[in-house]
Amino acid sequence: MQSEMNQRVLLKKRPNGMPSVDDFELVNHYLDDIEEGEILIKIQYLSADPYQRGLLAENPLRGTVLEIGSVIPGGAVGEVLVSRNPNFKSGQMVEGRLGWQKFAKSDGIGIRKIDPNLAPIPSSLGVLGMPGMTAYFGFLEVCLPVPGDVVVVSAAAGAVGSLVGQIAKIMGCKVVGISGSLQKKTYLLETLNFDAVINYKTQDVDKTLRDECPEGIDVYFDNVGGIISDMVISQLNVGGRVAVCGQISLYNLSEPELAPRFLSTLIYRNIRIEGFVVSKWNSRYPEGITRMAKWIKEGLIQYEEHVIHGLENAPQGLIDVLSGNNLGKVIIKI
Amino acid sequence: MQSEMNQRVLLKKRPNGMPSVDDFELVNHYLDDIEEGEILIKIQYLSADPYQRGLLAENPLRGTVLEIGSVIPGGAVGEVLVSRNPNFKSGQMVEGRLGWQKFAKSDGIGIRKIDPNLAPIPSSLGVLGMPGMTAYFGFLEVCLPVPGDVVVVSAAAGAVGSLVGQIAKIMGCKVVGISGSLQKKTYLLETLNFDAVINYKTQDVDKTLRDECPEGIDVYFDNVGGIISDMVISQLNVGGRVAVCGQISLYNLSEPELAPRFLSTLIYRNIRIEGFVVSKWNSRYPEGITRMAKWIKEGLIQYEEHVIHGLENAPQGLIDVLSGNNLGKVIIKI
Repeated sequence: MQSEMNQRVLLKKRPNGMPSVDDFELVNHYLDDIEEGEILIKIQYLSADPYQRGLLAENPLRGTVLEIGSVIPGGAVGEVLVSRNPNFKSGQMVEGRLGWQKFAKSDGIGIRKIDPNLAPIPSSLGVLGMPGMTAYFGFLEVCLPVPGDVVVVSAAAGAVGSLVGQIAKIMGCKVVGISGSLQKKTYLLETLNFDAVINYKTQDVDKTLRDECPEGIDVYFDNVGGIISDMVISQLNVGGRVAVCGQISLYNLSEPELAPRFLSTLIYRNIRIEGFVVSKWNSRYPEGITRMAKWIKEGLIQYEEHVIHGLENAPQGLIDVLSGNNLGKVIIKI
Repeated sequence: MQSEMNQRVLLKKRPNGMPSVDDFELVNHYLDDIEEGEILIKIQYLSADPYQRGLLAENPLRGTVLEIGSVIPGGAVGEVLVSRNPNFKSGQMVEGRLGWQKFAKSDGIGIRKIDPNLAPIPSSLGVLGMPGMTAYFGFLEVCLPVPGDVVVVSAAAGAVGSLVGQIAKIMGCKVVGISGSLQKKTYLLETLNFDAVINYKTQDVDKTLRDECPEGIDVYFDNVGGIISDMVISQLNVGGRVAVCGQISLYNLSEPELAPRFLSTLIYRNIRIEGFVVSKWNSRYPEGITRMAKWIKEGLIQYEEHVIHGLENAPQGLIDVLSGNNLGKVIIKI
């Protein structure tokens, strides 16, 4: 295996605003030896997710700066080709933060074994992976929904938002999605049975929300931030809950956006706003995956994948995610 | 009693920015008859609290507009003079939102009986009343402190902040206060044993916080809002909690202040921000009062009262609260 040629997507220069394909480069790379305790994985599918934009920044929120020339970090799923680690067998399917490359070496830490009989392999990057668990735990544990709650979700046709809305329907909530195209709106209303969808590019979000939620909003699952979030938060009921999952509308800004302060408005309405990353519930993935797989089998959860072909097109996948060109989960097939 | 002359403080005109004594007027008023089910209370002490500023606004956060010519709403404690309500006896001491006046009629709803043997009467407006319960439940239930937590409290020498800091010490936390004078700083450090105090008028809050909290901040009890809150929130640790109790720095602004958006910063640190009003725990006042009275007897909680004499000076009491001229609870003695 040691003579096998790897290919990797590296960070060539830091994006200024929306990333462009020129910010990345595809390079060849000879694989190192597989040492005792390591495994070699042949990657089949990569993931493109909004959080990756944050990793490319000079002052990332997570604290560690990705050096120029590094492999782009990201979720991936593939087959174990060589194992010198007793926990893994050759031929096993595994998922982990393996990065944008054709082959990955790993010491097995943070690598999750995938059951190909449970669902198609790419779903381990979507509905049965990080985005699915983000929707499942983020909505159920942070938003604490009860039947009858009015739930608003932004980026509603994305990998996470589309699942949050469906879980909210399962919980007996009224679901209003905020989304950016007629195609997405139609999908959410007709296929996923959302109660209402607002196209923020063509409709007055504040007014339409008031029309669609005459009794106010109980839960807001926030994927976008910015002025849309200001409008939703201003319409929250007493006891309202906000899960801050993403702020995609702000990720490509070079300067923080200014906005009116709103913490006062939380006081008299006893509102809770909570940020989270899904790794908080790492130990509970088996519970979440079992539940989601059951809901898929029962026809209660549907999902879409936006598939891009070829490692060299992974940067375009990320640009699609950040531009909202996708319906559902963006997957790169190698 | 019906011929008794009442005096009341009315809203004369809406304050523009910081209220002035000219925004209020003292008027005489003949008492109405006491009907079946009602009580007549002779008020001894009134309360001035930051939240009252919000009630005077044209677009109050609470939703109901106080009409010009209305009695200023506010907490008060006094003696039942006449009772035509079977739940109250003449001579009993009671506390409630009786308003800024010498005599108040009530149907008894929301009126709390006071035990004068537990503590001096005015404490029912402070440490054993609304501010005390705000500190007790707001800190313990919203901030969920554990020993070793680094707790920052703003308006630290105020009625609520000074109690939050002491309860945090009882809980085994490290306590850093933010306050606006040398006198307050000395009081908090030397009398209340805060671990550190920052005078925001003379010190660089951001830098001093970093120096005093080298391992970051776990809990922020926010009474002030504005740029001070931005600085504290930016230094919160993973799992940080913010109780939004008040935003006194913003109450006198006629336009909402603009500030950089910060919700993104909550995500990777799993931070929770929660607004609350103490009425949420109305049914648990007996628990909170019993605990606070015990801590006072044990010398674990100390409190100050800033006493103003005469109903006619109640507006000045509110101005003192809003200007930070007070150390501890502002009480108006009639």
